[in-house]
Formats: sequence, C-alpha cells, structure tokens
Amino acid sequence: MRNTIVTILASLVLAGATYAQEVKEDFVSLSTNQWGKEYPKANSQGYVRNQVFAPEAYRVQFQVNGIVFPMSRDTEGYWTGTSTQPFDEGNHYYAIIVDGVEVPDPNSVFLYGSGAERTQIEIPAHDQDKYALRDVPHGQIRELYIMSSVTGEHRHVFVYTPPMYDDNLKTRYPVLYLQHGYTENETGWSRQGHCGWIMDNLIADGKCLPFIIVMENGETSHPFDMSARQDGSMNQQAFQRFPDILIKDVIPYIDSHFRTYADGKHRALAGLSMGGMQTRQISLAHPDVFNSIGLFSGGTISEKDLQDNPDFLKLNRLTFVSYGSREVENPRGEAPKAVVEKVKGLGLNAYYYESPLTAHEWQTWRRSLYEFAQLLFRK
Amino acid sequence: MRNTIVTILASLVLAGATYAQEVKEDFVSLSTNQWGKEYPKANSQGYVRNQVFAPEAYRVQFQVNGIVFPMSRDTEGYWTGTSTQPFDEGNHYYAIIVDGVEVPDPNSVFLYGSGAERTQIEIPAHDQDKYALRDVPHGQIRELYIMSSVTGEHRHVFVYTPPMYDDNLKTRYPVLYLQHGYTENETGWSRQGHCGWIMDNLIADGKCLPFIIVMENGETSHPFDMSARQDGSMNQQAFQRFPDILIKDVIPYIDSHFRTYADGKHRALAGLSMGGMQTRQISLAHPDVFNSIGLFSGGTISEKDLQDNPDFLKLNRLTFVSYGSREVENPRGEAPKAVVEKVKGLGLNAYYYESPLTAHEWQTWRRSLYEFAQLLFRK
Repeated sequence: MRNTIVTILASLVLAGATYAQEVKEDFVSLSTNQWGKEYPKANSQGYVRNQVFAPEAYRVQFQVNGIVFPMSRDTEGYWTGTSTQPFDEGNHYYAIIVDGVEVPDPNSVFLYGSGAERTQIEIPAHDQDKYALRDVPHGQIRELYIMSSVTGEHRHVFVYTPPMYDDNLKTRYPVLYLQHGYTENETGWSRQGHCGWIMDNLIADGKCLPFIIVMENGETSHPFDMSARQDGSMNQQAFQRFPDILIKDVIPYIDSHFRTYADGKHRALAGLSMGGMQTRQISLAHPDVFNSIGLFSGGTISEKDLQDNPDFLKLNRLTFVSYGSREVENPRGEAPKAVVEKVKGLGLNAYYYESPLTAHEWQTWRRSLYEFAQLLFRK
Repeated sequence: MRNTIVTILASLVLAGATYAQEVKEDFVSLSTNQWGKEYPKANSQGYVRNQVFAPEAYRVQFQVNGIVFPMSRDTEGYWTGTSTQPFDEGNHYYAIIVDGVEVPDPNSVFLYGSGAERTQIEIPAHDQDKYALRDVPHGQIRELYIMSSVTGEHRHVFVYTPPMYDDNLKTRYPVLYLQHGYTENETGWSRQGHCGWIMDNLIADGKCLPFIIVMENGETSHPFDMSARQDGSMNQQAFQRFPDILIKDVIPYIDSHFRTYADGKHRALAGLSMGGMQTRQISLAHPDVFNSIGLFSGGTISEKDLQDNPDFLKLNRLTFVSYGSREVENPRGEAPKAVVEKVKGLGLNAYYYESPLTAHEWQTWRRSLYEFAQLLFRK
C-alpha cells in the first residue's frame, strides 16, 4: 500500500495550499468507477484521492470541475494525490492529466457533459437512496429514433415508462418532457440524473403518481458549432428550432406510440439550467400544451410573465422553481424564492425548492426532480 | 494542416517497417469519434491515422488491437502517426499512449469490451448499410432491471422490441436470447453489434420476421475476479450460474412482461464466441426450451452431440454456425463447415455462414446476426 501521509504532505507542498480542515481517512471507491477499480476515491467530507500508475511520466495531475491537483510519484511509478479542497455531494467533471495532456481516467465511466463524453466522479451523498437501485418494481428506459419533419434527421430520444406499463394494456399515463442543460444531451437525465431509479423509488413508496418521462436533445449538444449561435452565447437552435421539434414531431409521436393522456392537463415540461429557460419560453407560448412546468436552476415565472401571458395564469396547474442553495447565496436580481411568493399571490400554483449545500450541478437537479415528481399531475 | 508525407516517413523510420502497399490519401473521420472530432481517421484500405495535441509530452503513440504505432511531433506540439498495417472492416480496440500511459482517446466514444469501457475505432465497411440507421420504422432498445432469484442481485438486461410492438397490443412475438462474448457484457449487441438497426433494416426490407431480442450479461464481464474461475481459463459462472439465471429468472420475466409466444418453437438462443459455447451447452441440455440456435465464432454441434442428445436432433428447428473467414483459414480440428455438412446429413436443419475477410471480431458477428435473423422462426 502507498504511504498516504507522505503523499498528502507532498501534495501540500506541491500545491502550496493548506487544508482548512483535517482530512478524514475514510476514503471509498466511487460509483462512477469502472468495475473493480479502487481509484478514484472520495471521503465523507468530499475530498478526492487518486492514484495512477505512470512510471514513465514526469508529471501526473488530476482535475475536478477544472481545478487541478498535483500527484506525487513513489519509487514504483505510482502517482498519488488528494484534492486540497472538498467537493459537494454528487456528480462532478473529472480527468487525469499526464505530462500536460488532459485525458479520461480509464478507471472511470464516460458520461456526456460539457460538450463531450468524458469521465466524471460521484461524491457519495447523504440522500443517495433517493436515486439508488432498490429492490422495487422497475420501469424501463427505452431508446427511440424518431424522424423529424423539422430537421429531416433522426431524433435520439429516451423514454421512461413506469413499472407495470406493459402489464395493464388499458391504463393511460400523463407525460413529463424533461430537458437537459447547455452542452448536455438526451442521455443526461437517465444517466447522471438517475431519473428512472428516482421514479421507481417514488412510485414504490407511494409518493408520486406513475407517469411517462420523455428525454429529447434540446439542440444544445454541439455547442461549438458557432454557425448555429448568432447571439454569441447560447445555441440559437435551442430557442428557435427545438420548440418546433418538440411540438411538431416529438409530442405527436409519443401520443401515438405510447398510452398517454394526450392533453395539456396531463402533460408537463421541465428542464435544468438552459432546459429550464426553454421550459419557460415554450410553456409561456403554449400554456395549453403544457399545464405543468418545472424550472430547475433555470429561471422563474415572474409577475410580468403572468401579466404578458394571461392564458398561462389561467391554464397552468403547477409551476415548480428550484435552485441549489449555493446558486442563490448572492442573487444578482430578486431572489427566486421571492419571485415565486409574488406569483403565488397572483393565484399561480407555484412552489419553490432549494437543494441544501449544492450548486449548479446534478445533485441539485436530482433532488429537484424528486420533489417536483411528487407534486405533478395531482390536480 | 500537418504535413502528412513527412509524418508517414517519420513513422516508417520510427517503426522500422515498410508499407506493403501504397497508403491511399482518402482518410475519413470515424463513426466512433465523438461529435465534431476529426481524428482518428481511417482510409479505404483500413489504415488508421491519428493526431493528438500534446506539446509537453515526449512520446505519443496509439494502439489498435494492441499493436502500437509511433507518432511524430511537429513544432506546435501536434503528434501525428499512421498505422503501418491495415485493419479489417469493423470494430477494433484502440487507445492512445502518452509517455507510456495507455489512456482512452478523448476524441472517441467508450464501448465495453475486454473487461472495461474503453475507446474503440470503427473502420468503415463495404456492407455497413446492413447496420446503418436508415429512414425506416424503428424498434426500441429497452433497459430493464430484473431481480434474480439465483444471485439475489439485479440483472441489467436490454431488450429489442420490433417496430409496431406498441401499436397492435394483441400481436405476440418470438424471442431470441442473444449473448455476448468473454469479457464483454450486455451492452455489446446493441452498441458495437447494432442489433437494433440490423433488425429494423431486415424487417423494413421484408427479409426477416419481427421478433424480440433479449440481451443479458453472460456472467463474463468481470473476468479478473479469479475467485470465480476455477478452471484457470474461463469464468466458471458463465457455465454454471448463467444457465440457471437465464432459465429460472430471465425467461419467466420476459414471458410475463412482454407479448411473447412462450414455447420452444418460438424461442431461440445465440451467442458470439463464449456466448456460442454457452448456447451450445444450454441448448443441448434444454432442447425443449430453445428449438433454434446460433453459434457465432463459438463452436459447432457435432455428430457426437446429436448421438449423445437425441432430443436435440428431434426438437431443433434451426442450427446456425458461423465464423469469420480468417478464423478458419487454418482450423485446428475439423473445419466447422465440414462438421455442419455432417450433421445436415443426420437430418439437422443446419446452416453454415462465413464472413469474408474478417476475424474473431464484431464485423463477423454483425454479419452473422444479419444472416441468422433471416432464417429464424420460419418453420
């Protein structure tokens, strides 16, 4: 075994940093590790420790969320290092850096985020049972290809069907259309988000009604195609082409191939970050199509929105707004919680949820779905 | 642009090799590349060219199927190299090597094989339309979790349902149980194998009857767990525990949750390599459960098998045996084609297929499924 004390001291010297707290020696292998791989690890405080065998390299580092940490070499060629800061519970971007080249860690699985498949790490969370694979009846995640009349190309779509969907062939279900964020894609909610296990658990515990979830690509997964970005910031397709794809192609396909209730009362739209912005845009423009919405770290419905869109106020049955607590510590404008209180005062059935001690990251959004799903399709 | 002539000359010097043929300059980016990534590339002869930006590294190489090729650095820090041999059409293992550390190429997608998720490359094939995403009606690939009475743990299962499965809720279908090879897992047939697109295309072209495909983990995905390997070569669980899991857990689950014909006449078992060996073992022991079988690069049913298992000869409706032509150039024992001819003489409805110019690799198995599916459930 490596001498971890020496390693930590070496890391401190190399990083020129000091620990703000004593690092507990309770490191465990991560759920994002490939089978049988011991490293990377995290401890109960959220510190990350890594080890790479690279006898011929002259410098090995690792990065978490873009923050680079040094590793030190032992005589055999094992490089070991521990982060000099803890990370929040949940999912973070992660890679190793070998002599200046940032590459995926072969010990970890690939997940799509920040414009590519890449390695990520999962810091164990105190509430991870919410999205754990438990011994309960399971739904299915189905992979579909839908030809789009808007793009002339196939859409790659994932659909969650609840447990028992294939057992009683007369039962119909409401549908949630659930969108990912900027530079993510249609795989995010079922993989990093664990939406299938969240739903299976909620349904088994009697906490939510069974419904179908549809996960589409919000046209943001190719962020570096500048030809499609005319405003200089976000992919124009996400706000011009995606609403058309969703309403003209995807919804009709789902309603004709799945046993849905094909009306606005039984149809919801939600998304994280940019998916929340898309949800706001589309649901304000089409309040009859989606009577329930969820905005996870993606804005609010304001008093002005309701004044400008009286049909939205009339038709909307549920407006759910959420953020991670670290996102709203220093809000630039009015705090979203206050905005939600105001629209509630105007008669909107609005809810606000704040994920404790998380930022703009998957742990916030898993918890948001967990809360949102319990409120959906109740009235 | 890099100077490719200089690069090739440098590669030749470094490799100490000479090209047996002139390398054509018709390199194209690969389908296994991540979105927008130019490299790695292959040409029409099957040569592979790669480029990696690594200004601080002192040696960058890449490997295909374990064969390492050098790359040479330009003044900016781009390393470029071309393989000194061509590779067969289809899927191959692939990685980059930075200062001695073999790592996944961040330009490529991850696929599971050889005991881990890793990067692979896809050499374009002359018959790739067989497994292309075409504008035809598509089935679904469904991800399921089935609790096993044998292991006490969840089984991770993928199920292909044919187009229209959800449209006519009275139609029932036959089922093919389709197994991966040693050190592969339940993702192989839908990902590297493209079984969904193969089936969609065959059904659209009127070349095969629609059926369901079930893809399970054959208990071989953790090959380095020596505790489970008592014969020193292959995972004992694959031949002792897996048959139980399949027959006691998976088949009853599929027959009770999907609209199948739940009898041996409408149930087939096939597999590649070790999955073929499992198919042979299980179908000889349970010829009533599976009346049709496919052995892809995984052995044959011999005259002795039929003598020892008279029920197999009586009940079997289709026995399909296939190999890549490169696998059988110098057979160690009797050529599989000759074995198949002999059992045909005993009355078995046996077929032999040989994939041209491929070895023990996915291109052989995609083509095998393409041929096998057309024969299945016809009588």
